[in-house]
Amino acid sequence: MKVKYQLLHQDKTARYGTLTTNYGTFETPMFMPVGTQATVKTLDPRELKELSSSVILSNTYHLWLRPGEDIVSKAGGLHKFMNYDGPILTDSGGFQVFSLANPKNISEEGVIFKSHLNGEKLFLTPEKSIGIQNKLDSDIAMSFDECIPYPATYEYAKKSTERTLRWAKRGLAVHQNPNQSLFGIVQGGEYQDLREWSAKETSKLNFDGFSIGGTSVGEDKVTMYKMIEDGIRYLPEDKPRYLMGVGDPIDIVEGVDRGIDMFDCVLPTRLARHGHAFTRDGKINIKNAKYKEDFTPVEENCDCYCCKHYTKAYIRHLIVANETLGQRLLSIHNIRFLIRLTEEIRKSIQENTFKEYKQEFIERYTNNKKA
Amino acid sequence: MKVKYQLLHQDKTARYGTLTTNYGTFETPMFMPVGTQATVKTLDPRELKELSSSVILSNTYHLWLRPGEDIVSKAGGLHKFMNYDGPILTDSGGFQVFSLANPKNISEEGVIFKSHLNGEKLFLTPEKSIGIQNKLDSDIAMSFDECIPYPATYEYAKKSTERTLRWAKRGLAVHQNPNQSLFGIVQGGEYQDLREWSAKETSKLNFDGFSIGGTSVGEDKVTMYKMIEDGIRYLPEDKPRYLMGVGDPIDIVEGVDRGIDMFDCVLPTRLARHGHAFTRDGKINIKNAKYKEDFTPVEENCDCYCCKHYTKAYIRHLIVANETLGQRLLSIHNIRFLIRLTEEIRKSIQENTFKEYKQEFIERYTNNKKA
Repeated sequence: MKVKYQLLHQDKTARYGTLTTNYGTFETPMFMPVGTQATVKTLDPRELKELSSSVILSNTYHLWLRPGEDIVSKAGGLHKFMNYDGPILTDSGGFQVFSLANPKNISEEGVIFKSHLNGEKLFLTPEKSIGIQNKLDSDIAMSFDECIPYPATYEYAKKSTERTLRWAKRGLAVHQNPNQSLFGIVQGGEYQDLREWSAKETSKLNFDGFSIGGTSVGEDKVTMYKMIEDGIRYLPEDKPRYLMGVGDPIDIVEGVDRGIDMFDCVLPTRLARHGHAFTRDGKINIKNAKYKEDFTPVEENCDCYCCKHYTKAYIRHLIVANETLGQRLLSIHNIRFLIRLTEEIRKSIQENTFKEYKQEFIERYTNNKKA
Repeated sequence: MKVKYQLLHQDKTARYGTLTTNYGTFETPMFMPVGTQATVKTLDPRELKELSSSVILSNTYHLWLRPGEDIVSKAGGLHKFMNYDGPILTDSGGFQVFSLANPKNISEEGVIFKSHLNGEKLFLTPEKSIGIQNKLDSDIAMSFDECIPYPATYEYAKKSTERTLRWAKRGLAVHQNPNQSLFGIVQGGEYQDLREWSAKETSKLNFDGFSIGGTSVGEDKVTMYKMIEDGIRYLPEDKPRYLMGVGDPIDIVEGVDRGIDMFDCVLPTRLARHGHAFTRDGKINIKNAKYKEDFTPVEENCDCYCCKHYTKAYIRHLIVANETLGQRLLSIHNIRFLIRLTEEIRKSIQENTFKEYKQEFIERYTNNKKA
């Protein structure tokens, strides 16, 4: 089935709702952990479920290269391959257009890449991206787009945004997995009129949800929030709105305030692998010598497996000794931190206290910043 | 309390018994996974329990250097520090005398090392080793010994074996943790009379168990099995017998046949990190291209979490993509493989069919060797 979004309550512009998927109904706003290579780094699916994860994300580009979509398909699809019985969203490879391809290798037809694995020349098109995602059999596929660099000239952004819309139409035309939803992507770079145009035109197409793309590519926060606002106001209310690649706690709160329902980011797991942990009082670096004999949990009152059973001193030891259990415990905590954040956000929206929640959260997180 | 061994049944020289510890009673022969730095690499304590692990091992030398025994002690001991509520055995640092110290830095007093972390000069003595282990608060501590290199001259082996006995007495004299057992170590290198002398003299001391040390240091299998035989026949029947550092499946079966009750080794986790898995038909290398589209478990009929939920194709993908979940799943399987092996061994001893079991196991494991 296609996902169904239901808007259940609004607290000003913040939305509380549900997303019904092939694997059940989940509340929004939600945070989606990223499992680039068909695994959320260091974690297993049991741990993800224990964190109350709902949708997780996986990367089409990476799975295309390794192990290849045909192997995943022969395994019975991505869920069976990786043993995750919850909803999975796949991105389109569009972010890799931004991060790996030379702009001069982007044509109307598609994009020429060099494989990050072996330098092999690759060609990705909207049809190819959708075809791969069809085979991966994710629950939500993303339209193939170009993630525009920041800054970009108006001319570049306009040309790219128009092409992304044509790519969206080409992708829709070949999409044929009835159990897979397809989300469109709003681009437009930093330009208000392009964001508006992109949102309006993309909304006209038969997508099951919409995402705001092209943020978190180096722009300042003011610009990023404006990019969201400039597009989101033209999106239909009855479809989910997904802010791609965003996982900073402040950005999640700001995104919700602008009507976002879904977020994803590698941040919680990447920070964990470097020994950083989210707390209400800002990020901490567990390698700091002051935690050597700190026998308290990463965060008091956190309900995650890491905080219920392990101390900062032990996790510091593991991280310093390069033991993967340390990365894993912090990944558990950091993902749970963001999922708890969305739980509290949802509650505050339902109680019409989101603005107060937001202000309090940001003040505490920012003022005590320990990073 | 001190551990108590009870010999319940003998099938010729193979022993079935129980070891009662501070954390309950466990059957022997047993395999003990190694958690060098206060963590069994890539696993957490819940997974260890799920594998039916009983005793796990941790390394005194490593914990002495990092995080330091005082921090572990302040945490409430090793169990609390690492959140493992089962028995823990600590080695003495004796193996590091062999692997890290220059023989000319071994004196009657103790051993001068260079830290593998920062080159710092370190001095380890029997008193220091026992003192550290007292603070770590493991359930079973090991006597400080020299693991003799192979080959060694008779003169060197004799001198070292005699010194190891003097070190054993010095360690016993300072050991004072009433909840910690202390095991003596039989040395003697490759020399029958030295093994006999070491076993007899060590047995006279008030140890709670005995281990055969100095094997798996480069000698051939025939020599290794002889080293066991030359010492073990002089050990008391009512104390547990532990073969240090041995985890090859064939060696476990051969060790049991010579009266060994306890084994430990980094092999299952080390092999896992390199993509190797134990099976009844020999070791396999999961990176082999033939497993690319093999959607069967690592081993049919294995009851571990890895084999119940994941395919070779997926694990191969994880290992090739350098995702730690791959290492973790194979670690789970490999440890469980050895623990299941000991379960079957125990059953066969109780049924007086150990010799047949041994022959069948070795034939299948060796003849089909796939490594």
